[in-house]
Amino acid sequence: MSAAGKARRMNRDLDVLVFERSPHTSYSACGIPYHVAGYVDDPRDMQVRTPESFRERYGIDARVAHEVVSIDVHDRRVSVKRFESGKTWTEPWDQLLVATGAGPVVPDVPGADAAGVHAISTLQSGIVLRRAVDEERPRRAVLVGAGYVGLEMAEAMLERGIDTTVVEMNDQVMATLDAGMAGRVEEAMREAGATLHLGEAVEGIEVEGGKARAVRTADRTLDADLVVFGVGMRPRTAIARDADIPLGDRGAVRVDERLRSRVDGVWAAGDCAESYNLVTRRYENVALATVANKHGVVAGTNIAGGYARFPGVVGTAITRFRDLEIARTGLGEAAARALGYEVAVATIESTTRLDYYPGAEAIAVEVVGERSTGRLLGGQIVGGAGAGKRIDVLAAALHAGATLADVVDMDLAYAPPFSPVWDPVQIASRVALKDV
Amino acid sequence: MSAAGKARRMNRDLDVLVFERSPHTSYSACGIPYHVAGYVDDPRDMQVRTPESFRERYGIDARVAHEVVSIDVHDRRVSVKRFESGKTWTEPWDQLLVATGAGPVVPDVPGADAAGVHAISTLQSGIVLRRAVDEERPRRAVLVGAGYVGLEMAEAMLERGIDTTVVEMNDQVMATLDAGMAGRVEEAMREAGATLHLGEAVEGIEVEGGKARAVRTADRTLDADLVVFGVGMRPRTAIARDADIPLGDRGAVRVDERLRSRVDGVWAAGDCAESYNLVTRRYENVALATVANKHGVVAGTNIAGGYARFPGVVGTAITRFRDLEIARTGLGEAAARALGYEVAVATIESTTRLDYYPGAEAIAVEVVGERSTGRLLGGQIVGGAGAGKRIDVLAAALHAGATLADVVDMDLAYAPPFSPVWDPVQIASRVALKDV
Repeated sequence: MSAAGKARRMNRDLDVLVFERSPHTSYSACGIPYHVAGYVDDPRDMQVRTPESFRERYGIDARVAHEVVSIDVHDRRVSVKRFESGKTWTEPWDQLLVATGAGPVVPDVPGADAAGVHAISTLQSGIVLRRAVDEERPRRAVLVGAGYVGLEMAEAMLERGIDTTVVEMNDQVMATLDAGMAGRVEEAMREAGATLHLGEAVEGIEVEGGKARAVRTADRTLDADLVVFGVGMRPRTAIARDADIPLGDRGAVRVDERLRSRVDGVWAAGDCAESYNLVTRRYENVALATVANKHGVVAGTNIAGGYARFPGVVGTAITRFRDLEIARTGLGEAAARALGYEVAVATIESTTRLDYYPGAEAIAVEVVGERSTGRLLGGQIVGGAGAGKRIDVLAAALHAGATLADVVDMDLAYAPPFSPVWDPVQIASRVALKDV
Repeated sequence: MSAAGKARRMNRDLDVLVFERSPHTSYSACGIPYHVAGYVDDPRDMQVRTPESFRERYGIDARVAHEVVSIDVHDRRVSVKRFESGKTWTEPWDQLLVATGAGPVVPDVPGADAAGVHAISTLQSGIVLRRAVDEERPRRAVLVGAGYVGLEMAEAMLERGIDTTVVEMNDQVMATLDAGMAGRVEEAMREAGATLHLGEAVEGIEVEGGKARAVRTADRTLDADLVVFGVGMRPRTAIARDADIPLGDRGAVRVDERLRSRVDGVWAAGDCAESYNLVTRRYENVALATVANKHGVVAGTNIAGGYARFPGVVGTAITRFRDLEIARTGLGEAAARALGYEVAVATIESTTRLDYYPGAEAIAVEVVGERSTGRLLGGQIVGGAGAGKRIDVLAAALHAGATLADVVDMDLAYAPPFSPVWDPVQIASRVALKDV
C-alpha cells in the first residue's frame, strides 16, 4: 500500500489496482502481541488505513479478500480470485508489484494443524489469537520459538495470567544476539515467570478431540491449551517462482537497488523481496515493517516513472520484554566471526542516565569492530527504559561506514537525566578500540 | 582530571601535578540543578572521584584549594597559592595543560553582588544554593536568563514550592532554539506555573540590609528572596591571556586538533578551550561536559607522548523541563540563515511510540538542510519521554556529512513501544527533502 500510495501521488493519471488476500490493508502486524496482551484493545487501532480510505483519499482501487492466484509475465496479466463469490478472472498490467509478504514457518510435525495451534501472520490471525485467549481462557500456553514473536508473545501470555513455557531449538533465545546478551534476556524471562526449555526441538503436538493438549519434545511432554509457533518467517513467493520470477537463496524475489525484479516490468517490495545489507555486502531477506515501508516508497516512485534507489539495510531490530529493551544492528560477534571477520569486541555495563540520577537503569552494550581496520561492524544492547533506541546511533554509524574511533568522537547528547557523560555506545566503542 | 588520568595511564613514569582552586575534583556540574531540586540529595553523589582516589588509584598529585595565579611560558613554571596557608611558590613544568574551565557571566548591574544572588559554576556554588533554599526557605525566586541553567533552575525552584519568575532579554527562551520550538518550551514552563517575562533586560537588583529583595527590569520590579543568574558562561582565561597564550574571538584558548595552544608545550582542554565545529567549519567555545571529557582524553594522550586528535563538535545539547525533553544539534533555521545558507527546513509533529501504543507522547522535530545540496545542517527536538535522545541520530549524521536523503534511508530501530514505523527524525527529513 505504501508503493500504491506513492505511485499515485507521483502520477495522478496512473490506474492503481491492489489485490489483498486478507480482509485488511495497511495494518501494523507488529502490534499483534500487544493486542493479545491487552495493551491495545481495539484491533482497528492497528489499521493505518482502510481500503475505503485508500479509494477516497488516493483514488486507489484496493480490493481485500481477493487473491492473485497466478502471474503471467509474458502476456502481462494476473489471475484473480474473489473469495466472496469464488469468481476468477484476469487483470492486465503494465507494471506489476509483487508485495506478497512473508508467512510464518509452521514446522512439519504431527498435530501442527490442530485447533488451539496458532501462528502469527496477518492482523486477522492476531484477532483470532486474541479471541481465543479471551474466550477459551487457556491456562497453559507453550510458545515454540524464542525469537521476536516468542518473546513478545511470552510477555502477552504472562500479562494475561497464563502459565507460559517457551521451547527453543537453539541453546539460547534470540538467535541473532550473542550468547551473553541473550543470557540477560533469558534471566528476565525466567524472573517474569516464564519457563524456558532451550536446546529442545518440538517433535509433535498431542491432540485430543481435534484440539491441541500438549507439546512433545525429545525430553518431555508439556501440557498446553494453547500453542503459538514463532519459529521464523518465510517470504510468500510461490506465486512468483511459478511465474519464473527469479528468487534468491532465501526464497525472496531478487531485486536490484531500484527494486526491479529480474523480469522486465515486475517489481518486488517488502517481506517477499531481497534487501542489500550494507555491512555484509550481501543480499538477504528482511521481514520488517521499516524496510517494507522504505521499499514501498522506492518501488512506488519507480513504478510511477520516477527514480529512486533503496541503498540497503544494516540489520537493525528492536523489541522489548516487559521493561527490558533489546536491540541489535549490523553483525554480532558470532555472526561476524562466521563471516570470517577478525573482530575487536567489547561488552560493557553502564547506566541509561547518569548513575546518580533517579531512574538510571542498567544497560549492557556490545560493540563489534573489524580488528584490522577498526571499522564498526555492529552492536547489541540489552537494558532498561531508554536503552534500546541508542542502537540507532550505531545504525547511523554503520550507514556512514564509520570506525569505532568515529563513534567515540561523536558529539552525542548528554545531560544527567539522559545519559552518562560518555554514552554507553561510546564507552563500549572505546573499550573495543583497544583491540584494534 | 580526565587529561591527568589519561596521561598517567599512557605513561606511568610521568609526574602529574594538578592544581584546583575549588574544594572538589571531577564533579558533575550538570547535576547541580537536580541537587537544588532535591532529586539528588547528597552532593557527594555528584563527585566522580576525590583527590584522594586520584592519588591512590592513579598516582596523580591533585591539590584542591590551590590556585595557579600566573603562568610563565618562557621559564616554564607556574606560581601557585595555597588557600589554607596563604603560601605562594613556583612549580616547574615540561608540559602545561590549561583547564581552567568557564565561569558564569554576572551582568554588571547594581546589586549583583548582594546576598541572595547566585550564579552557578562549581559544585561548591551549587551546594551553597541548595543550602540557601533549604535554610532560608525563599518564597519568591527570580531567575535571570532562560537558557539551560534558567530552565533547569526553574524546574528546581517549582519543585521546591517556590514562586518562580524567569526574566529573559531575548524574545524567547533557549536562544539556540528556533522560535517555534522555543514556544513549546515556554508553554510547558507557563503550564508548570512559572511566570515568564521575555524581551526584558535586568537593570538592577534592589537590596535591603545587604540582601536582594527585588529584581528591576525596564518594565517592572519583581519581588525576590532569591535571584539566580543564568545568562551564559565565559571561559576563565585571564591567566592564559596574561601569559600571552593566544585566545580566540570568544576568549577561549586557541587550539589545534591535538589541543595544542599556540605556545609550545602548552595545551588547553575543556570549557576554556576552543572546539572546531564540523558543521559551520569554524572554531567556537563549547562549555559542555561531553566535550570537556573528550578534550581531556585527547590532551592527556598527546601530553604523554601519544597521538590523538579531537575532530570537532557538531553542536549537540539536551535538557529537560519536567517531562518535556529538549535537544538540538548542528544549526537551527535561524542560525543557518544567519550564516548565509539557503535552507530546506521542515517541522513535523509525531509520536515517540507508535500512535496507538500506550505511552506514546507528542514529539516535534525540526530538520534543517542545505537547499542546494541536501546536506543535513541540523535539527531540534521538543517532546515527551523518549524524544530527546533521538537527536543523536542527527548528530551522527552530521559527523558523517550525511544528506537529508541519507537520514531517510537509515535503517533505524522500530517496534510499537519505541517509535512510529518511520522515526520522527526521518519523517521530518522526508518533508524537508521536498524543498531541496
